[in-house]
Amino acid sequence: MTNGKFITLEGGEGAGKSTQAVRLTQRLHAAGIAALVTEEPGGTPFGKRIRELVLSNKPEVIETELFLFAAQRVEHLAVTIGPALQRGSWVISDRFIDSTRVYQGDLGGLDQELIRQVERLSVTRMPDLTMVLDVPVELGHTRAKARGATNRFDEQSLAKHEIIRQGFLRIAQAERERCAVVDGSADEEAVAEAIWRVVAERLHP
Amino acid sequence: MTNGKFITLEGGEGAGKSTQAVRLTQRLHAAGIAALVTEEPGGTPFGKRIRELVLSNKPEVIETELFLFAAQRVEHLAVTIGPALQRGSWVISDRFIDSTRVYQGDLGGLDQELIRQVERLSVTRMPDLTMVLDVPVELGHTRAKARGATNRFDEQSLAKHEIIRQGFLRIAQAERERCAVVDGSADEEAVAEAIWRVVAERLHP
Repeated sequence: MTNGKFITLEGGEGAGKSTQAVRLTQRLHAAGIAALVTEEPGGTPFGKRIRELVLSNKPEVIETELFLFAAQRVEHLAVTIGPALQRGSWVISDRFIDSTRVYQGDLGGLDQELIRQVERLSVTRMPDLTMVLDVPVELGHTRAKARGATNRFDEQSLAKHEIIRQGFLRIAQAERERCAVVDGSADEEAVAEAIWRVVAERLHP
Repeated sequence: MTNGKFITLEGGEGAGKSTQAVRLTQRLHAAGIAALVTEEPGGTPFGKRIRELVLSNKPEVIETELFLFAAQRVEHLAVTIGPALQRGSWVISDRFIDSTRVYQGDLGGLDQELIRQVERLSVTRMPDLTMVLDVPVELGHTRAKARGATNRFDEQSLAKHEIIRQGFLRIAQAERERCAVVDGSADEEAVAEAIWRVVAERLHP
Protein backbone atom coordinates (compact mmCIF):
# COMPACT_ATOMS: atom_id res chain seq x y z
CA MET A 1 0.00 0.00 0.00
CA THR A 2 1.35 3.40 -0.89
CA ASN A 3 0.97 6.41 1.33
CA GLY A 4 -1.85 8.86 0.71
CA LYS A 5 -1.44 12.42 -0.51
CA PHE A 6 -1.80 15.45 1.75
CA ILE A 7 -3.73 18.41 0.35
CA THR A 8 -4.41 21.69 2.14
CA LEU A 9 -6.95 24.37 1.25
CA GLU A 10 -6.09 27.92 2.20
CA GLY A 11 -7.63 31.35 1.79
CA GLY A 12 -9.52 34.06 3.63
CA GLU A 13 -13.00 33.87 5.12
CA GLY A 14 -15.76 33.11 2.64
CA ALA A 15 -13.35 31.66 0.09
CA GLY A 16 -15.24 28.35 0.16
CA LYS A 17 -12.55 26.20 1.78
CA SER A 18 -14.82 24.03 3.94
CA THR A 19 -17.32 23.40 1.15
CA GLN A 20 -14.61 22.57 -1.36
CA ALA A 21 -12.74 20.36 1.11
CA VAL A 22 -15.86 18.21 1.43
CA ARG A 23 -16.49 18.22 -2.34
CA LEU A 24 -12.90 17.20 -3.07
CA THR A 25 -13.17 14.37 -0.58
CA GLN A 26 -16.37 13.15 -2.25
CA ARG A 27 -14.73 13.35 -5.65
CA LEU A 28 -11.80 11.26 -4.41
CA HIS A 29 -14.20 8.73 -2.94
CA ALA A 30 -15.98 8.56 -6.30
CA ALA A 31 -12.62 7.83 -7.89
CA GLY A 32 -12.14 4.94 -5.45
CA ILE A 33 -9.65 6.75 -3.23
CA ALA A 34 -9.99 6.79 0.56
CA ALA A 35 -9.95 10.40 1.75
CA LEU A 36 -10.35 12.17 5.05
CA VAL A 37 -11.41 15.79 5.51
CA THR A 38 -10.06 17.66 8.51
CA GLU A 39 -9.41 21.21 9.64
CA GLU A 40 -7.24 23.59 11.67
CA PRO A 41 -7.50 24.59 14.37
CA GLY A 42 -9.35 21.42 15.31
CA GLY A 43 -8.87 18.05 13.66
CA THR A 44 -8.30 16.27 17.00
CA PRO A 45 -10.23 16.31 20.30
CA PHE A 46 -7.37 18.32 21.77
CA GLY A 47 -7.30 20.65 18.77
CA LYS A 48 -11.00 21.39 19.17
CA ARG A 49 -10.33 22.53 22.73
CA ILE A 50 -7.57 24.78 21.43
CA ARG A 51 -9.92 26.14 18.79
CA GLU A 52 -12.51 27.05 21.43
CA LEU A 53 -9.79 28.59 23.58
CA VAL A 54 -8.39 30.80 20.82
CA LEU A 55 -11.78 31.93 19.57
CA SER A 56 -13.14 32.75 23.04
CA ASN A 57 -10.05 33.89 25.00
CA LYS A 58 -7.64 35.77 22.81
CA PRO A 59 -4.09 35.59 24.23
CA GLU A 60 -2.51 38.97 24.97
CA VAL A 61 0.40 38.50 22.58
CA ILE A 62 0.55 37.13 19.07
CA GLU A 63 3.61 34.98 19.85
CA THR A 64 1.39 32.93 22.17
CA GLU A 65 -0.93 32.17 19.26
CA LEU A 66 2.05 31.02 17.19
CA PHE A 67 3.03 28.37 19.73
CA LEU A 68 -0.56 27.44 20.43
CA PHE A 69 -1.26 26.76 16.76
CA ALA A 70 2.00 24.83 16.59
CA ALA A 71 0.77 22.69 19.50
CA GLN A 72 -2.52 21.79 17.83
CA ARG A 73 -0.67 21.18 14.53
CA VAL A 74 1.78 18.74 16.12
CA GLU A 75 -1.18 16.88 17.60
CA HIS A 76 -3.07 17.04 14.30
CA LEU A 77 -0.13 15.58 12.37
CA ALA A 78 0.55 12.85 14.93
CA VAL A 79 -3.00 11.79 15.65
CA THR A 80 -5.00 12.44 12.48
CA ILE A 81 -2.99 13.34 9.39
CA GLY A 82 0.03 11.06 9.73
CA PRO A 83 -1.84 7.83 10.56
CA ALA A 84 -4.38 8.43 7.76
CA LEU A 85 -1.65 8.99 5.17
CA GLN A 86 0.17 5.89 6.38
CA ARG A 87 -2.86 3.70 5.90
CA GLY A 88 -3.12 4.98 2.34
CA SER A 89 -5.88 7.55 2.79
CA TRP A 90 -5.62 10.99 1.26
CA VAL A 91 -6.03 13.87 3.70
CA ILE A 92 -7.68 17.19 2.87
CA SER A 93 -7.13 19.86 5.53
CA ASP A 94 -9.12 23.09 5.68
CA ARG A 95 -6.20 25.40 6.67
CA PHE A 96 -2.65 24.45 7.69
CA ILE A 97 0.74 26.19 7.91
CA ASP A 98 -0.04 28.98 5.46
CA SER A 99 -2.85 30.28 7.68
CA THR A 100 -0.28 30.75 10.45
CA ARG A 101 2.10 32.55 8.11
CA VAL A 102 -0.70 34.87 6.98
CA TYR A 103 -2.79 35.46 10.12
CA GLN A 104 0.00 35.58 12.72
CA GLY A 105 2.63 36.87 10.26
CA ASP A 106 1.24 39.21 7.62
CA LEU A 107 -1.77 40.25 9.68
CA GLY A 108 -0.44 39.90 13.23
CA GLY A 109 2.98 41.33 12.45
CA LEU A 110 5.02 38.39 13.72
CA ASP A 111 8.45 37.96 12.18
CA GLN A 112 8.16 35.45 9.31
CA GLU A 113 11.55 34.02 10.18
CA LEU A 114 10.34 33.14 13.69
CA ILE A 115 7.25 31.55 12.14
CA ARG A 116 9.44 29.45 9.81
CA GLN A 117 11.66 28.34 12.66
CA VAL A 118 8.68 27.17 14.71
CA GLU A 119 7.33 25.51 11.57
CA ARG A 120 10.58 23.62 11.03
CA LEU A 121 10.42 22.30 14.61
CA SER A 122 6.75 21.34 14.57
CA VAL A 123 5.74 20.33 11.04
CA THR A 124 6.92 16.83 10.26
CA ARG A 125 4.96 16.51 7.01
CA MET A 126 4.51 19.23 4.40
CA PRO A 127 1.45 19.20 2.11
CA ASP A 128 1.91 17.62 -1.31
CA LEU A 129 -0.40 20.27 -2.68
CA THR A 130 -1.81 23.50 -1.31
CA MET A 131 -4.72 25.15 -3.02
CA VAL A 132 -5.25 28.84 -2.37
CA LEU A 133 -8.88 29.71 -2.97
CA ASP A 134 -8.78 33.32 -4.04
CA VAL A 135 -11.78 35.62 -3.89
CA PRO A 136 -12.09 39.42 -3.87
CA VAL A 137 -12.39 40.52 -0.24
CA GLU A 138 -15.85 42.04 -0.69
CA LEU A 139 -17.20 38.72 -1.95
CA GLY A 140 -15.49 36.76 0.82
CA HIS A 141 -16.89 39.12 3.41
CA THR A 142 -20.41 38.91 1.98
CA ARG A 143 -20.27 35.10 1.95
CA ALA A 144 -18.91 34.88 5.49
CA LYS A 145 -21.65 37.20 6.74
CA ALA A 146 -24.35 35.32 4.84
CA ARG A 147 -23.48 32.09 6.64
CA GLY A 148 -23.52 33.94 9.95
CA ALA A 149 -19.86 33.29 10.62
CA THR A 150 -18.88 35.67 13.37
CA ASN A 151 -15.77 34.92 15.26
CA ARG A 152 -12.96 37.32 15.99
CA PHE A 153 -11.14 36.48 12.74
CA ASP A 154 -14.24 37.04 10.64
CA GLU A 155 -14.79 40.43 12.18
CA GLN A 156 -11.67 41.94 10.61
CA SER A 157 -12.10 44.99 8.43
CA LEU A 158 -11.91 44.85 4.66
CA ALA A 159 -8.39 46.30 4.72
CA LYS A 160 -7.30 43.40 6.91
CA HIS A 161 -9.01 40.93 4.59
CA GLU A 162 -6.95 42.39 1.76
CA ILE A 163 -3.73 41.80 3.75
CA ILE A 164 -4.86 38.21 4.25
CA ARG A 165 -5.67 37.75 0.57
CA GLN A 166 -2.33 39.16 -0.56
CA GLY A 167 -0.51 37.04 2.00
CA PHE A 168 -1.86 33.81 0.55
CA LEU A 169 -1.17 34.96 -3.02
CA ARG A 170 2.42 35.84 -2.07
CA ILE A 171 3.00 32.34 -0.63
CA ALA A 172 1.52 30.70 -3.74
CA GLN A 173 3.80 32.85 -5.89
CA ALA A 174 6.88 31.98 -3.82
CA GLU A 175 6.19 28.24 -3.62
CA ARG A 176 4.83 27.27 -6.99
CA GLU A 177 5.84 23.63 -6.66
CA ARG A 178 3.58 23.15 -3.65
CA CYS A 179 0.87 25.73 -4.29
CA ALA A 180 -1.80 26.51 -6.87
CA VAL A 181 -4.20 29.45 -6.91
CA VAL A 182 -7.80 28.67 -7.81
CA ASP A 183 -10.34 31.41 -8.53
CA GLY A 184 -12.92 30.93 -5.79
CA SER A 185 -15.35 33.55 -6.99
CA ALA A 186 -17.13 31.29 -9.47
CA ASP A 187 -20.05 29.09 -8.40
CA GLU A 188 -19.42 26.08 -6.19
CA GLU A 189 -19.61 23.56 -9.03
CA ALA A 190 -17.13 25.45 -11.23
CA VAL A 191 -14.66 25.91 -8.36
CA ALA A 192 -14.89 22.18 -7.56
CA GLU A 193 -14.07 21.42 -11.21
CA ALA A 194 -11.11 23.79 -11.21
CA ILE A 195 -9.78 22.20 -8.02
CA TRP A 196 -10.17 18.73 -9.44
CA ARG A 197 -8.26 19.68 -12.58
CA VAL A 198 -5.33 20.86 -10.44
CA VAL A 199 -5.43 17.71 -8.30
CA ALA A 200 -5.57 15.50 -11.41
CA GLU A 201 -2.67 17.31 -13.05
CA ARG A 202 -0.41 17.50 -10.00
CA LEU A 203 -1.15 14.36 -8.04
CA HIS A 204 -2.55 11.89 -10.59
CA PRO A 205 -5.21 10.31 -8.36
CA MET B 1 14.75 52.52 38.68
CA THR B 2 16.66 49.33 38.02
CA ASN B 3 15.03 46.17 36.73
CA GLY B 4 13.96 43.49 39.15
CA LYS B 5 15.52 40.05 39.47
CA PHE B 6 13.91 36.90 38.14
CA ILE B 7 14.05 33.82 40.38
CA THR B 8 12.58 30.41 39.59
CA LEU B 9 11.92 27.54 41.98
CA GLU B 10 12.10 24.05 40.53
CA GLY B 11 11.80 20.49 41.80
CA GLY B 12 9.47 17.52 41.95
CA GLU B 13 6.10 17.30 43.66
CA GLY B 14 6.17 17.89 47.39
CA ALA B 15 9.50 19.70 47.26
CA GLY B 16 7.92 22.79 48.83
CA LYS B 17 8.15 25.13 45.83
CA SER B 18 4.82 26.94 46.28
CA THR B 19 5.30 27.43 50.02
CA GLN B 20 8.86 28.65 49.59
CA ALA B 21 7.93 30.93 46.70
CA VAL B 22 5.48 32.73 48.98
CA ARG B 23 7.96 32.85 51.87
CA LEU B 24 10.70 34.25 49.65
CA THR B 25 8.32 36.91 48.39
CA GLN B 26 7.43 37.88 51.96
CA ARG B 27 11.11 38.02 52.89
CA LEU B 28 11.82 40.32 49.96
CA HIS B 29 8.88 42.54 50.95
CA ALA B 30 10.30 42.69 54.50
CA ALA B 31 13.59 43.85 52.98
CA GLY B 32 11.72 46.63 51.19
CA ILE B 33 11.80 44.99 47.77
CA ALA B 34 8.70 44.71 45.58
CA ALA B 35 8.19 41.07 44.62
CA LEU B 36 5.59 39.10 42.73
CA VAL B 37 4.93 35.37 43.07
CA THR B 38 3.70 33.52 40.01
CA GLU B 39 3.63 29.98 38.61
CA GLU B 40 3.69 27.75 35.54
CA PRO B 41 1.58 26.61 33.95
CA GLY B 42 -0.65 29.51 34.91
CA GLY B 43 0.55 32.99 35.77
CA THR B 44 -1.82 34.67 33.28
CA PRO B 45 -5.58 34.27 32.64
CA PHE B 46 -4.69 32.49 29.40
CA GLY B 47 -2.10 30.33 31.17
CA LYS B 48 -4.67 29.20 33.71
CA ARG B 49 -6.87 27.95 30.87
CA ILE B 50 -3.88 26.05 29.46
CA ARG B 51 -3.19 24.60 32.90
CA GLU B 52 -6.78 23.31 33.13
CA LEU B 53 -6.54 21.95 29.61
CA VAL B 54 -3.31 20.02 30.20
CA LEU B 55 -4.39 18.61 33.55
CA SER B 56 -7.82 17.48 32.31
CA ASN B 57 -7.24 16.59 28.63
CA LYS B 58 -3.86 15.04 28.11
CA PRO B 59 -2.72 15.54 24.50
CA GLU B 60 -1.93 12.32 22.66
CA VAL B 61 1.71 13.18 21.98
CA ILE B 62 4.35 14.72 24.21
CA GLU B 63 5.46 17.16 21.46
CA THR B 64 2.07 18.83 21.77
CA GLU B 65 2.75 19.51 25.44
CA LEU B 66 6.11 21.06 24.54
CA PHE B 67 4.52 23.66 22.27
CA LEU B 68 1.60 24.18 24.62
CA PHE B 69 3.89 24.95 27.55
CA ALA B 70 5.91 27.23 25.25
CA ALA B 71 2.67 29.09 24.43
CA GLN B 72 1.78 29.72 28.07
CA ARG B 73 5.42 30.68 28.79
CA VAL B 74 5.50 33.27 26.01
CA GLU B 75 2.30 34.75 27.42
CA HIS B 76 3.64 34.56 30.98
CA LEU B 77 6.84 36.41 30.03
CA ALA B 78 5.04 39.06 28.00
CA VAL B 79 2.11 39.72 30.30
CA THR B 80 3.34 39.02 33.84
CA ILE B 81 7.08 38.48 34.25
CA GLY B 82 8.50 41.05 31.82
CA PRO B 83 6.35 44.02 32.88
CA ALA B 84 6.93 43.29 36.61
CA LEU B 85 10.71 43.15 36.15
CA GLN B 86 10.62 46.35 34.12
CA ARG B 87 8.84 48.27 36.85
CA GLY B 88 11.53 47.12 39.28
CA SER B 89 9.69 44.27 40.97
CA TRP B 90 11.37 40.95 41.59
CA VAL B 91 9.55 37.93 40.21
CA ILE B 92 9.47 34.50 41.84
CA SER B 93 8.08 31.77 39.59
CA ASP B 94 7.02 28.35 40.85
CA ARG B 95 8.37 26.31 37.87
CA PHE B 96 9.73 27.59 34.55
CA ILE B 97 11.91 26.17 31.72
CA ASP B 98 13.57 23.45 33.76
CA SER B 99 10.24 21.75 34.43
CA THR B 100 9.78 21.42 30.67
CA ARG B 101 13.28 19.99 30.26
CA VAL B 102 12.60 17.46 33.03
CA TYR B 103 8.92 16.50 32.57
CA GLN B 104 8.71 16.53 28.77
CA GLY B 105 12.40 15.67 28.27
CA ASP B 106 13.78 13.31 30.93
CA LEU B 107 10.40 11.87 31.86
CA GLY B 108 8.49 12.17 28.58
CA GLY B 109 11.41 11.13 26.39
CA LEU B 110 11.42 14.22 24.16
CA ASP B 111 14.73 15.07 22.54
CA GLN B 112 16.48 17.67 24.73
CA GLU B 113 17.82 19.41 21.62
CA LEU B 114 14.26 19.99 20.35
CA ILE B 115 13.33 21.32 23.78
CA ARG B 116 16.28 23.74 23.71
CA GLN B 117 15.40 24.93 20.22
CA VAL B 118 11.83 25.68 21.24
CA GLU B 119 13.20 27.34 24.38
CA ARG B 120 15.47 29.59 22.32
CA LEU B 121 12.51 30.70 20.20
CA SER B 122 10.11 31.28 23.09
CA VAL B 123 12.06 32.36 26.17
CA THR B 124 13.06 36.01 25.95
CA ARG B 125 14.27 36.27 29.55
CA MET B 126 16.27 33.65 31.44
CA PRO B 127 16.08 33.47 35.24
CA ASP B 128 18.80 35.28 37.17
CA LEU B 129 18.68 32.47 39.69
CA THR B 130 17.05 29.04 39.72
CA MET B 131 16.69 27.21 42.97
CA VAL B 132 16.23 23.46 42.77
CA LEU B 133 14.49 22.24 45.92
CA ASP B 134 15.74 18.71 46.35
CA VAL B 135 13.96 16.12 48.45
CA PRO B 136 14.14 12.30 48.50
CA VAL B 137 11.30 11.00 46.34
CA GLU B 138 9.58 9.17 49.21
CA LEU B 139 9.33 12.40 51.19
CA GLY B 140 8.11 14.38 48.18
CA HIS B 141 5.51 11.75 47.50
CA THR B 142 4.31 11.69 51.12
CA ARG B 143 4.04 15.48 51.20
CA ALA B 144 2.17 15.67 47.89
CA LYS B 145 -0.28 13.01 49.07
CA ALA B 146 -0.75 14.70 52.43
CA ARG B 147 -1.90 17.91 50.79
CA GLY B 148 -4.28 15.92 48.60
CA ALA B 149 -2.52 16.91 45.40
CA THR B 150 -3.78 14.52 42.78
CA ASN B 151 -3.30 15.50 39.22
CA ARG B 152 -1.82 13.38 36.50
CA PHE B 153 1.74 14.53 37.25
CA ASP B 154 1.42 13.76 40.95
CA GLU B 155 0.23 10.26 40.23
CA GLN B 156 3.55 9.14 38.77
CA SER B 157 5.26 6.19 40.36
CA LEU B 158 8.27 6.54 42.63
CA ALA B 159 10.61 5.46 39.83
CA LYS B 160 9.33 8.33 37.72
CA HIS B 161 9.76 10.72 40.63
CA GLU B 162 13.39 9.62 40.82
CA ILE B 163 13.86 10.43 37.10
CA ILE B 164 12.39 13.87 37.80
CA ARG B 165 14.65 14.41 40.82
CA GLN B 166 17.79 13.41 38.92
CA GLY B 167 16.76 15.59 35.97
CA PHE B 168 16.68 18.72 38.08
CA LEU B 169 19.97 17.82 39.79
CA ARG B 170 21.62 17.29 36.41
CA ILE B 171 20.51 20.72 35.19
CA ALA B 172 21.77 22.35 38.39
CA GLN B 173 25.10 20.57 37.93
CA ALA B 174 25.39 21.65 34.28
CA GLU B 175 24.40 25.29 34.85
CA ARG B 176 26.01 26.27 38.11
CA GLU B 177 26.02 29.97 37.29
CA ARG B 178 22.24 30.08 37.13
CA CYS B 179 21.28 27.27 39.49
CA ALA B 180 21.62 26.34 43.14
CA VAL B 181 20.43 23.19 44.87
CA VAL B 182 18.75 23.63 48.23
CA ASP B 183 17.98 20.69 50.52
CA GLY B 184 14.21 20.77 50.74
CA SER B 185 13.83 17.97 53.26
CA ALA B 186 14.38 20.15 56.33
CA ASP B 187 11.48 21.99 57.98
CA GLU B 188 9.88 24.93 56.22
CA GLU B 189 11.66 27.56 58.31
CA ALA B 190 15.11 26.05 57.73
CA VAL B 191 14.53 25.71 53.97
CA ALA B 192 13.39 29.34 53.82
CA GLU B 193 16.61 30.37 55.57
CA ALA B 194 18.75 28.31 53.19
CA ILE B 195 16.99 29.87 50.19
CA TRP B 196 17.46 33.34 51.59
CA ARG B 197 21.19 32.74 52.08
CA VAL B 198 21.52 31.77 48.41
CA VAL B 199 19.51 34.78 47.26
CA ALA B 200 21.55 37.11 49.48
CA GLU B 201 24.84 35.71 48.23
CA ARG B 202 23.98 35.57 44.53
CA LEU B 203 21.68 38.54 43.98
CA HIS B 204 22.47 40.96 46.82
CA PRO B 205 18.91 42.16 47.47
